Amino acid sequence: MSHTRHLAAFLASLKYSDLPNEVLSRSEDLFLDWLGSALASQGSHPIPLFERYAARMGPADGPSTLLVNGLRSSPYFAALVNGASSHLVEQDDLHNSSVLHPATVVFPAVLAAAQDLGKSGSQLLLATVAGYEAGIRIGEFLGRSHYRTFHTTATVGTLAAAVSVGKLMDFDEEAFINLLGSAGTQAAGLWEFLRDAADSKQLHTAKAAADGLLAAYLTADGLTGARNILEGDQGMAAGMSSDARPACLSDRLGSRWALLETSFKFHASCRHTHPAADALLALMRDEGLRHDDIASVVTRVHQGAIDVLGRVEVPQSVHQAKFSMGTVLGLIAVHGKAGLTEFQQHALSDPRVAAFRDKVSMQLDDQVDAAYPQRWLGRVEVLGNDGRRYQGAIDSPKGDPDNSLSRRELEDKFRRLVAFSGALDGNSVEALIERAWGLRSSTELKDLLVFTAIDHAR
Amino acid sequence: MSHTRHLAAFLASLKYSDLPNEVLSRSEDLFLDWLGSALASQGSHPIPLFERYAARMGPADGPSTLLVNGLRSSPYFAALVNGASSHLVEQDDLHNSSVLHPATVVFPAVLAAAQDLGKSGSQLLLATVAGYEAGIRIGEFLGRSHYRTFHTTATVGTLAAAVSVGKLMDFDEEAFINLLGSAGTQAAGLWEFLRDAADSKQLHTAKAAADGLLAAYLTADGLTGARNILEGDQGMAAGMSSDARPACLSDRLGSRWALLETSFKFHASCRHTHPAADALLALMRDEGLRHDDIASVVTRVHQGAIDVLGRVEVPQSVHQAKFSMGTVLGLIAVHGKAGLTEFQQHALSDPRVAAFRDKVSMQLDDQVDAAYPQRWLGRVEVLGNDGRRYQGAIDSPKGDPDNSLSRRELEDKFRRLVAFSGALDGNSVEALIERAWGLRSSTELKDLLVFTAIDHAR
Repeated sequence: MSHTRHLAAFLASLKYSDLPNEVLSRSEDLFLDWLGSALASQGSHPIPLFERYAARMGPADGPSTLLVNGLRSSPYFAALVNGASSHLVEQDDLHNSSVLHPATVVFPAVLAAAQDLGKSGSQLLLATVAGYEAGIRIGEFLGRSHYRTFHTTATVGTLAAAVSVGKLMDFDEEAFINLLGSAGTQAAGLWEFLRDAADSKQLHTAKAAADGLLAAYLTADGLTGARNILEGDQGMAAGMSSDARPACLSDRLGSRWALLETSFKFHASCRHTHPAADALLALMRDEGLRHDDIASVVTRVHQGAIDVLGRVEVPQSVHQAKFSMGTVLGLIAVHGKAGLTEFQQHALSDPRVAAFRDKVSMQLDDQVDAAYPQRWLGRVEVLGNDGRRYQGAIDSPKGDPDNSLSRRELEDKFRRLVAFSGALDGNSVEALIERAWGLRSSTELKDLLVFTAIDHAR
Repeated sequence: MSHTRHLAAFLASLKYSDLPNEVLSRSEDLFLDWLGSALASQGSHPIPLFERYAARMGPADGPSTLLVNGLRSSPYFAALVNGASSHLVEQDDLHNSSVLHPATVVFPAVLAAAQDLGKSGSQLLLATVAGYEAGIRIGEFLGRSHYRTFHTTATVGTLAAAVSVGKLMDFDEEAFINLLGSAGTQAAGLWEFLRDAADSKQLHTAKAAADGLLAAYLTADGLTGARNILEGDQGMAAGMSSDARPACLSDRLGSRWALLETSFKFHASCRHTHPAADALLALMRDEGLRHDDIASVVTRVHQGAIDVLGRVEVPQSVHQAKFSMGTVLGLIAVHGKAGLTEFQQHALSDPRVAAFRDKVSMQLDDQVDAAYPQRWLGRVEVLGNDGRRYQGAIDSPKGDPDNSLSRRELEDKFRRLVAFSGALDGNSVEALIERAWGLRSSTELKDLLVFTAIDHAR
């Protein structure tokens, strides 16, 4: 039995009663965290472009909610707009070893389809878990060579989104095989846009969620797909990876819950900056250093950080600043944190941040690189203005599974995210938190967000 | 100036008055040929799936026509359904050296957008030429290594469709740069499905047309894209090719009209079978051979033919039969032609065709391979039952630019295509032919196909 078939069989047989309480509970955490990320983007470029596109190309009404404006459309356009929205502020979750952001592709698809198909909260959670378990393993399968050129959340995200909707539709093994084929052959997304601070990241997550959903609806209606899109001679690994490991696809299915391995984002920047940011923060606190005590910072990083962050020297936009190691460390050093508000107010305009940015460099570190992507180690070497040298190190950035956020911290993060855009009033925020914590017992999802619609319909 | 920028500048500056009459006239030929291919698929799996998907996800009405059912929708869904439709019967055009089928991705996008934007026939033709010129050069740029794993009509098709809609919207150079970025980062489509006779080919052309159109509408509204998606270090060539030739992108822009190099399909099979089919047909005619005079046929082919056709041994579906060299030559040998009707009636069920199929093999030929993809040489070695050996050779398969179809032959082909599905009655067929020949003077396109809607609305 191929690894792909093994995976499909697992997805088909997975039942709600198989899910440990910890997995259900984390899924609700991830749902709230995702909602916050989507709502935080309200009004920020390029999200209104996707809203207008949906209005122009889609129906005027439908079963599925567009989070940022509370309007409803068909599930395709809800997945598209919510997929664009939830990755913009760079506050959504990340799975380390697959380098996949699962929430921003899985939830837009699965929520849109659940609203369309009249599914319950528990069905949504089961489908979410299926999407995470499949997506993470496919990301690990495609490996680091894939991530060098391809944006895994875009490519693999298409399959993760598709699987979640397929599970919602109760696909059998055969349907999952076809679904993977039709989703995998749509998988796209290149890192080239980073160089120019272009808007493609939102296009990628929008399309991954929407294309995955499209694959599921067409598969349910009888569209067939390649039976071996992952491992085949002209499939994804053949075309888009040079270090694929098929065994990853069926790694401990049913006993390892990869969803539990995802990290919540604490800083509002690219996750590749977090280990160094936490290491610097701890070092400055421990040593009582101020930003102007510091002459230089060398961050010792894995190759992936250099590939993704290396090209941003002087950021031209707030979004690009989130991919600038120097800017992130500058915000940490000068303002003590690198949240959405700090990025908005200080990342481009504070001369102290810019001065600190120019003191920061990245160096490949063999030990850090070898640990990656299982562990994201933070190592910084700081030279003081007085000539003293310091070493900072953390082994688990804040938000990692073994240094996770509590529900209280997640609620605080949610409130800050929504306050950033002003998408909801305070009462709605609290009600939504309550609903997320009761997600598994929701009998239907159509009105889960109905007050959202009332509050910020424009 | 990069080759990409050179291409974008050309696309922005191209004017209707720049187009030689021969180019305009061939564009009209291609339009009619495309319409026939789309209409021929009416009612054939999986086209109704795409129609139902459009009905479920899209608006109930709109400016743009779905050819197979005469309904109207938003341009996105018209591009999607017409993109799926026009490649199904394998009768649409092909550009040899890029191995791109331009019509099935360019026309669905450009017609849907032209109907939406109230453009004229001459504007449609100019936009069509832009899509062809860009798409063909990008296909040549990505080269044979790309085509080994990726379905160029899907990947490059996304950019060709995008460019055609961008030209319709009168994009300047800067907008074309952004458009290429947003289209290129969506480019997807793997050959893996061929092994299983899966439905992905229709998904590929549907998505290429629709995604290209999506890129254009979002770009017009301000979405930015990677500025060097083709040539950049993390762009298409970096991720999806190992023999890219950047100079192809700007090859003789404005003096070479690549659109004129496309071939019309004469046989209803994969174009890789045509050279051998024509060589066998000519040989059998010249030597007076019948199918049961022949003991074996060795077709001497280029590597691309082996890559695409090599995996089909005993076809399981009519569509797969179009990728079976043995079946195609069996139809030629037994029935004298390999048109849609022959495929439908005899490809799977005629024991003489099956018997002939088993006599056919493919062998890589260095001379044929070296000429490809500029020339598609046909070479067959036939062994008679009487022990005699024959050599058949043709240098230009029927339909190639130097062995093209006349307007009379195109009209006949169109009538046969529409008759195959029964999509239109005879009067509508003749009226549509007349309108295609007058396309450049049509002032608007909304009602170009209106009788289509009346005739076969279901």
